[in-house]
Amino acid sequence: MFPRSPCQINCLHGSDAELISLDCDSKAPIAITVDSIAEEIAAGLYADPYLAGWMGVMASMSDLAAVGAEPFGIIISEILPRGMPQDSIEALQSGIRDACAVCGTYVLGGDTNTGNELSITGCAIGRTGKRRNLTRIGISPGDLLYTTGTLGAGNGFALNLYMGASEKGFLFRPEARLKEGQMLGDLAAACMDSSDGVLATLDQLMRLNNTGFQIDSGWQDLLHRDSRRLASLSGIPEWFLLAGQHGEFELLFTVRREDETRLHDRASREGWEPLRLGRATSTRSITINISGKEVIIPTGEIRDIALGSGSDLEANVAGLQGIHDRIMTDSLLFDDTRMR
Amino acid sequence: MFPRSPCQINCLHGSDAELISLDCDSKAPIAITVDSIAEEIAAGLYADPYLAGWMGVMASMSDLAAVGAEPFGIIISEILPRGMPQDSIEALQSGIRDACAVCGTYVLGGDTNTGNELSITGCAIGRTGKRRNLTRIGISPGDLLYTTGTLGAGNGFALNLYMGASEKGFLFRPEARLKEGQMLGDLAAACMDSSDGVLATLDQLMRLNNTGFQIDSGWQDLLHRDSRRLASLSGIPEWFLLAGQHGEFELLFTVRREDETRLHDRASREGWEPLRLGRATSTRSITINISGKEVIIPTGEIRDIALGSGSDLEANVAGLQGIHDRIMTDSLLFDDTRMR
Repeated sequence: MFPRSPCQINCLHGSDAELISLDCDSKAPIAITVDSIAEEIAAGLYADPYLAGWMGVMASMSDLAAVGAEPFGIIISEILPRGMPQDSIEALQSGIRDACAVCGTYVLGGDTNTGNELSITGCAIGRTGKRRNLTRIGISPGDLLYTTGTLGAGNGFALNLYMGASEKGFLFRPEARLKEGQMLGDLAAACMDSSDGVLATLDQLMRLNNTGFQIDSGWQDLLHRDSRRLASLSGIPEWFLLAGQHGEFELLFTVRREDETRLHDRASREGWEPLRLGRATSTRSITINISGKEVIIPTGEIRDIALGSGSDLEANVAGLQGIHDRIMTDSLLFDDTRMR
Repeated sequence: MFPRSPCQINCLHGSDAELISLDCDSKAPIAITVDSIAEEIAAGLYADPYLAGWMGVMASMSDLAAVGAEPFGIIISEILPRGMPQDSIEALQSGIRDACAVCGTYVLGGDTNTGNELSITGCAIGRTGKRRNLTRIGISPGDLLYTTGTLGAGNGFALNLYMGASEKGFLFRPEARLKEGQMLGDLAAACMDSSDGVLATLDQLMRLNNTGFQIDSGWQDLLHRDSRRLASLSGIPEWFLLAGQHGEFELLFTVRREDETRLHDRASREGWEPLRLGRATSTRSITINISGKEVIIPTGEIRDIALGSGSDLEANVAGLQGIHDRIMTDSLLFDDTRMR
């Protein structure tokens, strides 16, 4: 319903951050993004105000990372509950400060309101440099799918709380992959952060690029170790760590097959190791090996379950369990044709 | 508690929008600002979702106006209450769309969350051009104080609701003074928008510049006509229209005496008329003529009343009435020494 700016380079939903060319010539655009941390707080995930502050910064910094931008800084609007204790406010601000320090960036300003519920909105701004723009779009069948790090920490953290354990027992402090994103700028074909979980991210990339993904067998080895152990302990199928919508803020990206060596060489020089997760296919579906069966994951249905259950983690797990049961009884035969 | 970016040009609270130099050389900075519309919605001021959307854009566009910036666009984070009716959501988006159209700008992107209460956070970005930066700082005693338009519409609107009248009876659709701000860029000594009301704005300018203001006699003629009539009808002193914290989103600015003719010439060519409100003084106080008496307005106390009464308009009016009674009984003798 909104007209598009002639200076906007990315198409709608086409990149994690909006890319705006200052001179409308598509060179060296400004990257800008906004993320509110509200539902996660309301759901009890970020009861620790330090974590709420941390995430208020990292959520939008991760968007900048996914377009390969270098941040200038962040402006933050806080809605503080009336009567919020002073030490909670200080913890919140410490989380913001520390997250900025880790990202090598700054709080540029902000706005404070009072309300009934805590929410933190971060608006990050950065610059992408004078090269090809890194967006979510550009994947070809045969491209290789990578992640900047292990997967499932966000959902493992949520699972830990769901199991009734304390937040302290499972530290969740994702760090936006800024350095990696900048390195990928002229190397990756497409990139998106996994803030909504791995399968939701792949689902979005699939729809935008009209390609599919085949997840490599052995994907379990890419899982965040503590999260995997927790899933095992609680009897929850490991693939739920990819399906839950509380992401790990890694970057999922693809490279052309011929760029794979260059990727590893460059990453190695920078001191990190890209992890191969799978490859892009021409079929619009996401396939993964679960308990020895190659299955098509109904990502549309998973998204509907997440939408329907909102912040009710129990309902979400129950919905996923229904899909899992169908996988196990061979009844999951459908292709995910409900594309929207 | 936050370290400052070396690329940030304005000092803390020194301008309505943050001024960030892309090359850390202070030329042609980017202007960026964030404003949440939450308290006004919670207080019932923006029960009309169209107005809430409109204000979600205008609040930050007005900040850009006050630094003389030309907007690139706005990104908007919405927290929508669960079960918000579809027509209300559409009205909200229409308000956003129309406000952007009036400002000649664009929605660049955004984020949507669900929550218990509606809130809209707008983050506007613009560019100020390669000239002197317009901030809140730079006022000298003797400078002339101007407003871009009539005063009191915001408080008149709030008063109308407070009197139990419908929102429809008093249309409030402030328009960010972008064109005027850009024109003032190399002419005004300092500028700030009146989003928090006239006296709160002057109080802030006074503290930042270590100057005071003397409001011209005849200031009542600068009041928004309907608001003035409403104050009269409801027996509320007219100066409350300057004291309330629901501002009119005009720009309050000062010019050197020698620039006054240039100001009027240029404004006249652009088709608007700056209204003279007073002059800057060397005494750190704000004086105004109320009912024939020249009084020092205790702006610190007014701020405390507003803070203490929050969104309780009745308490705010009662607090102001206490000050007014002291003015009328000659007991308002103190200088506002409680500077912070």
